[in-house]
Amino acid sequence: MEGKLKIAVIGGGSSYTPELIEGILNRKDELPVSELWLVDVEEGKEKLRIITELAQRMAARSGVEIKIAATLDRREAIRNADYVITQFRVGFLKAREKDELIPLNYNVIGQETTGPGGFAKAMRTIPVILEICREIEELAPDAWLINFTNPSGIITEAVKKHSKVRVLGLCNIPVGMLKDIAKLLSVSSGRVTAEFVGLNHMNYIREVYLDGISIMDALLEQYGEESLREKIEAISDIVWDLDFMKSLRMIPSPYHRYFYRTDTMLEEEKESLESGGSRAMKVQEIERELFRLYADVNLAEKPKLLEERGGAYYSEAAISLISAVYNNKNENHVVNVRNEGTISNLPFDAVIEANCIVGRSGAKPLNLGMADVRIAGLLNAVKAYEQLTIEAAVSGDYHKALMALSANPLIHEFSDAKAILDEFLTAHRPYLDYVRKRE
Amino acid sequence: MEGKLKIAVIGGGSSYTPELIEGILNRKDELPVSELWLVDVEEGKEKLRIITELAQRMAARSGVEIKIAATLDRREAIRNADYVITQFRVGFLKAREKDELIPLNYNVIGQETTGPGGFAKAMRTIPVILEICREIEELAPDAWLINFTNPSGIITEAVKKHSKVRVLGLCNIPVGMLKDIAKLLSVSSGRVTAEFVGLNHMNYIREVYLDGISIMDALLEQYGEESLREKIEAISDIVWDLDFMKSLRMIPSPYHRYFYRTDTMLEEEKESLESGGSRAMKVQEIERELFRLYADVNLAEKPKLLEERGGAYYSEAAISLISAVYNNKNENHVVNVRNEGTISNLPFDAVIEANCIVGRSGAKPLNLGMADVRIAGLLNAVKAYEQLTIEAAVSGDYHKALMALSANPLIHEFSDAKAILDEFLTAHRPYLDYVRKRE
Amino acid sequence: MEGKLKIAVIGGGSSYTPELIEGILNRKDELPVSELWLVDVEEGKEKLRIITELAQRMAARSGVEIKIAATLDRREAIRNADYVITQFRVGFLKAREKDELIPLNYNVIGQETTGPGGFAKAMRTIPVILEICREIEELAPDAWLINFTNPSGIITEAVKKHSKVRVLGLCNIPVGMLKDIAKLLSVSSGRVTAEFVGLNHMNYIREVYLDGISIMDALLEQYGEESLREKIEAISDIVWDLDFMKSLRMIPSPYHRYFYRTDTMLEEEKESLESGGSRAMKVQEIERELFRLYADVNLAEKPKLLEERGGAYYSEAAISLISAVYNNKNENHVVNVRNEGTISNLPFDAVIEANCIVGRSGAKPLNLGMADVRIAGLLNAVKAYEQLTIEAAVSGDYHKALMALSANPLIHEFSDAKAILDEFLTAHRPYLDYVRKRE
Amino acid sequence: MEGKLKIAVIGGGSSYTPELIEGILNRKDELPVSELWLVDVEEGKEKLRIITELAQRMAARSGVEIKIAATLDRREAIRNADYVITQFRVGFLKAREKDELIPLNYNVIGQETTGPGGFAKAMRTIPVILEICREIEELAPDAWLINFTNPSGIITEAVKKHSKVRVLGLCNIPVGMLKDIAKLLSVSSGRVTAEFVGLNHMNYIREVYLDGISIMDALLEQYGEESLREKIEAISDIVWDLDFMKSLRMIPSPYHRYFYRTDTMLEEEKESLESGGSRAMKVQEIERELFRLYADVNLAEKPKLLEERGGAYYSEAAISLISAVYNNKNENHVVNVRNEGTISNLPFDAVIEANCIVGRSGAKPLNLGMADVRIAGLLNAVKAYEQLTIEAAVSGDYHKALMALSANPLIHEFSDAKAILDEFLTAHRPYLDYVRKRE
Repeated sequence: MEGKLKIAVIGGGSSYTPELIEGILNRKDELPVSELWLVDVEEGKEKLRIITELAQRMAARSGVEIKIAATLDRREAIRNADYVITQFRVGFLKAREKDELIPLNYNVIGQETTGPGGFAKAMRTIPVILEICREIEELAPDAWLINFTNPSGIITEAVKKHSKVRVLGLCNIPVGMLKDIAKLLSVSSGRVTAEFVGLNHMNYIREVYLDGISIMDALLEQYGEESLREKIEAISDIVWDLDFMKSLRMIPSPYHRYFYRTDTMLEEEKESLESGGSRAMKVQEIERELFRLYADVNLAEKPKLLEERGGAYYSEAAISLISAVYNNKNENHVVNVRNEGTISNLPFDAVIEANCIVGRSGAKPLNLGMADVRIAGLLNAVKAYEQLTIEAAVSGDYHKALMALSANPLIHEFSDAKAILDEFLTAHRPYLDYVRKRE
Repeated sequence: MEGKLKIAVIGGGSSYTPELIEGILNRKDELPVSELWLVDVEEGKEKLRIITELAQRMAARSGVEIKIAATLDRREAIRNADYVITQFRVGFLKAREKDELIPLNYNVIGQETTGPGGFAKAMRTIPVILEICREIEELAPDAWLINFTNPSGIITEAVKKHSKVRVLGLCNIPVGMLKDIAKLLSVSSGRVTAEFVGLNHMNYIREVYLDGISIMDALLEQYGEESLREKIEAISDIVWDLDFMKSLRMIPSPYHRYFYRTDTMLEEEKESLESGGSRAMKVQEIERELFRLYADVNLAEKPKLLEERGGAYYSEAAISLISAVYNNKNENHVVNVRNEGTISNLPFDAVIEANCIVGRSGAKPLNLGMADVRIAGLLNAVKAYEQLTIEAAVSGDYHKALMALSANPLIHEFSDAKAILDEFLTAHRPYLDYVRKRE
Repeated sequence: MEGKLKIAVIGGGSSYTPELIEGILNRKDELPVSELWLVDVEEGKEKLRIITELAQRMAARSGVEIKIAATLDRREAIRNADYVITQFRVGFLKAREKDELIPLNYNVIGQETTGPGGFAKAMRTIPVILEICREIEELAPDAWLINFTNPSGIITEAVKKHSKVRVLGLCNIPVGMLKDIAKLLSVSSGRVTAEFVGLNHMNYIREVYLDGISIMDALLEQYGEESLREKIEAISDIVWDLDFMKSLRMIPSPYHRYFYRTDTMLEEEKESLESGGSRAMKVQEIERELFRLYADVNLAEKPKLLEERGGAYYSEAAISLISAVYNNKNENHVVNVRNEGTISNLPFDAVIEANCIVGRSGAKPLNLGMADVRIAGLLNAVKAYEQLTIEAAVSGDYHKALMALSANPLIHEFSDAKAILDEFLTAHRPYLDYVRKRE
Repeated sequence: MEGKLKIAVIGGGSSYTPELIEGILNRKDELPVSELWLVDVEEGKEKLRIITELAQRMAARSGVEIKIAATLDRREAIRNADYVITQFRVGFLKAREKDELIPLNYNVIGQETTGPGGFAKAMRTIPVILEICREIEELAPDAWLINFTNPSGIITEAVKKHSKVRVLGLCNIPVGMLKDIAKLLSVSSGRVTAEFVGLNHMNYIREVYLDGISIMDALLEQYGEESLREKIEAISDIVWDLDFMKSLRMIPSPYHRYFYRTDTMLEEEKESLESGGSRAMKVQEIERELFRLYADVNLAEKPKLLEERGGAYYSEAAISLISAVYNNKNENHVVNVRNEGTISNLPFDAVIEANCIVGRSGAKPLNLGMADVRIAGLLNAVKAYEQLTIEAAVSGDYHKALMALSANPLIHEFSDAKAILDEFLTAHRPYLDYVRKRE
């Protein structure tokens, strides 16, 4: 198998794919990919064609010999694959639009990953990912599943609990956080490392190192200075309150804003909706423009515009992770893996997001001890919501779904959970038809 | 010591005291109290006098020989006491009024036990209760501290962590829930027992038994029937949504309404405020009327009106607990005790509220295994908030206090936590002067 | 069902049965047993007949109306039973003889419960008890299984892990220890209670109470006094070294002598063998004499000689446990139950022996926190051996059996474990034929 | 500090020191040691002089500029050190002789690390290492303590629990096991990695990898083949029974032989004693010869004979660990660190030996989940013994010492523990004078 890797990309027609192609082409010396299969569903056929042709032009220009195939037959793509990358979205961006808008009607943040929107997405995705796992178990039992589909933590835990597939759940946020800190310090990004503790999109940096030496206290001390805050604003889109940082004494992920600043974010979402649409709507616009560009037969590289789509460092995270596995690099990556006591006060069978040493035998988390009491409450609350969501998706039980949604900390009123769930079930037909009341 | 018990009541001038007196007099055959010391602070002197005289009249009428003494000297009251009951309120009901109103200005529920109001109360109370503990350690090291002061779970945990005093944290809610279920079933209350899992004011009944046989499934099945719902409405003031009950499959405590129905309760609090004042204001009115009655030299029994004050079964819970200890009854009581693995997925050193076997050597909890994932998230979130509050009170560190308050699940916006904290610190001078920013 | 209880006794032909009968007859007012089915295997037919006729004479003399039936058809006995008592011995006492003698050949203590002898017994018993459980699941799904068959902790854990049967594992040792302490103190046994922590035949009393007040320190202090030691010698057959007691600061069970005094006990076993046979041989002699007595048609009561058989308080423990369940007494009994965090530093899924509150819904252990480091090592070592034994019996895998036996702390040399296992497999044909090497 | 490292070696007069010197000289390019302080006690003065002069000759020949200083003033050596290496033996090899011989008188294996011998050594060492820690806290608070003094796991845990010193506990066994496997496979040692689970000298390899691919199953399959067994015999001095390996399915450390083959090892120790003395005696002979060689002014390199002393790879382990820290290599080393849930079923506060990623901020263990039930019993038993030993040494309480020693799985009779302890206390005067009976 050495020297002839087959990669299958489920959701290959995604606008992200060119970044992935670029990543593969850039690493051609260490990652001998001979076949790249892009697979999508009937509804995404046209996009898949455009992407595949662009990918082929990119490969041709870079002079790399690689078979790039498009197919609607998922089994064909998975058969004998070495790596299966999942980046699909059940129901496409149109579904995301509903995920975000329905909760807003109840003054609840939609949020397509950690919020009720992410709940709906998980409920649509889990049955499909488990179907894919059945196929991997049958057709490529030694393959690694690199999951990018959000909510990545929930999806990875569902796979871990309900299949035998070797899975690594990935997210681009930790890489982005490290790069932002490096920018802030004006140092090369390789010199900055950090200890992450938490869950996907719910991760905290509890220690940050420059050349291996902790700089957390120094960073917190400077956080109040105007000059630093201006710099942060320029780099990322969120500056936390100084007293908040002094209380927390950790660096929260950007997604924490929905939990620590719920009212503000709700207002922003509502304003954003009034002034031209939700994030999903904007993204759809960008997508349309992207595919217009992709279709241009003269284009043979990833266009600049893709960066506005979000998901920066996605290619880097995915391909460097695959390379770490393939080349047995034993490198430090932040990956979603089974907890098994890594964080002692989160459930043993939970999937967490942690610094792992990644090599040919997979990702092994560095032990983290206890999550500090400052964050243990929220982490446990979110993880309980996630586990309830998986139970709901696997059982198809309406009341389990209701329990899950109402356990999400962004929902403060049970009747909202019920109304939102009922609207989701109607709006996301037929994907959620399997959810039923049991007698 | 047998046959000559001394009980000290800190906050003896409370309007609840007559119920306590009644309880002691009713149990005179099994509980040989020879001295009852009522102690209060200078500001509560007049009330203390009224209560003490009423208590003496009650004792006289019932023909029980007991010395009932009033004092402002806490040390004198504690010296050689066998039981110390704490039911004081630092800052009196006037403070509670602020506890409830300040958060409301930020659209946050006040709630004087589980909410931000309870946080302020805990911050005022912990330094005082630890002072009392120092005195008990010195003057009555074998005494049992029966704590009723709210938030009882937090206060009890503070005592457990920061003193050597033997403490039992008590609450009247579990007794009340059991009595309500018995009423609902039209059976005598002794036939109904239940398995409680959770925290003070955050407790769930996960199994309920009639004569030792589980009736939870039957109860849930009937929950949807109109007739049962009418009965529930008549007995308690809260009827949960049928789908909520089918999702949760446990009986929540009345205080859970603030968490599962936050928006509704916020609206109620606001309306209540507009239409005649907060709960604290109403209670103050009742109190004034109560003390008018108490002062009547012809009154020698607990007046009916006291029942409207809240805190039903208070006397029963406290005195029957003391009797269980004194008489080594090994009875089942729901008490706040150190977790030590009773609920495996809550912190080992947390105080929880659980069914305990109570005898001369104290309260030993019946093991509960894991808290179900349906409730584990909220319980951990609330417990983390509680532990952060204790850390804040013991250290006096402003940023710890800020972290604690913002970790309370009823607060959804960090800036609200900061504003509310800052208002508390100002409004509750001098009680909270010890909270300072550390450099 | 009330008022008409059916009890099935598997191994009804045991010499212990008269004690059980006596217990049932003595409790006739609180335990309305209408049918008692004694079941045994073909090989025990004659003994079963003798016991049944004696039991009928005992019932007749006491004037209690109860159907006492003998059968070789286990299914008939189990059908609709309310309680199933298991007290059988696969292979009879002849097998016990081998259990004890084979290890002795290798200078290893046999010990039929905690030692290699108990391993062989468990390997013979687990397949049978699980067969019985299948029948209970089918024919009497609501029945309680009261297990007395040794090694009781292992058997109960096997049932808990591999069936749905409601089981309570029982042992007469804790009752005996409490009675001995009461004798030592010259007080009535009801006044002495204790906190047991550990496993079946591996239990320590870490607190002992007289009328609810701890007397452990006082006991330890007097332990060195000659007068007390003489008294202990008269009551029980073991006096521990004073320094041992000062080191341990707990009261060990009599079976601990095999672990803390291995060499001494080995010598004793060897001497005993030379001077007239192993314990099993002696017991067989007593048994022969007992059955000679039982067969006497003039005997209508439990003969005095039975007390020499061992197993004192057996009847009391079993029948009072059944009565606690039936009458929902919520009494404190020491029972083998699933750990579930009761002892935090033993496996969550282990069966432990602990103080439980026993009522109609079963036995709920009082939480114990951590087992002290003084005993945590040995307890974990023995529990690991027990769990390996269950795995071996359920899988029938030779190497798992070998791992289990060599993990028993009484075996100090792997080659001994292998030789003993191989001899067991040959000697206990056909009972252990199911143990095979897997390729 | 960069580029000018000061290393202090406590027990610098040890015969091992030349290996350490060699290691430092070999790594001169990556480890800029400018000062090496060898410190020893008065009694070891002459050896210290010999070693120091040899070290200076070695440095001179290799052309490395480094100050090599000898001192009896430990404080001077520690002051401003960057790394403190402890390799001392309280009481010298003469004490080891007693450690090994006294238990043998009671038919108990001495064993100077995991056995009763190691207990005596720990009791002598802990007070001294904690004294050294006090000095490091005062004089070199940022220094890393690299502990080699055996029993390394116990000593490291004592330091972790009772000082603030940054400590890494080291052992040469894991490196040796990996090198042996590489030899067996005839591959370069860099290609073999392994997952260790356990304690110092009580470690198991549960997964072994060649180029990152697990080869455990393949190894176990071949274990029965004669050719492989011959090869193993040639490489290491222990070949395990094939059935043992098939039962355990892990690779035990050489020290496990004392636990799985106790009788055999006891016989070996006794025979060895009769035929020319204990291991300690032999080592003393080698030592005398070594120092004769070291004193030769023409010698300027590590002599071949040192390899027979034991402790192979010692230099490699120590210096490569220091280099990993200094150069922030984030390399995988097997180090003794605080558990903190790395192995979920060992105590949270225990020191374990695990694969760690080592860089400038220390050693972070890779999470290990649960220790399999096959090894969990023995590991817990040994760890309990270790923790009791630390308690005994810190308290100086005779009965705690007695409890500790009798909890060692190599002792099977309490009276032996007492006799051995009493002999130790007499033989090791004045080092163990601090152990007293408390009243």
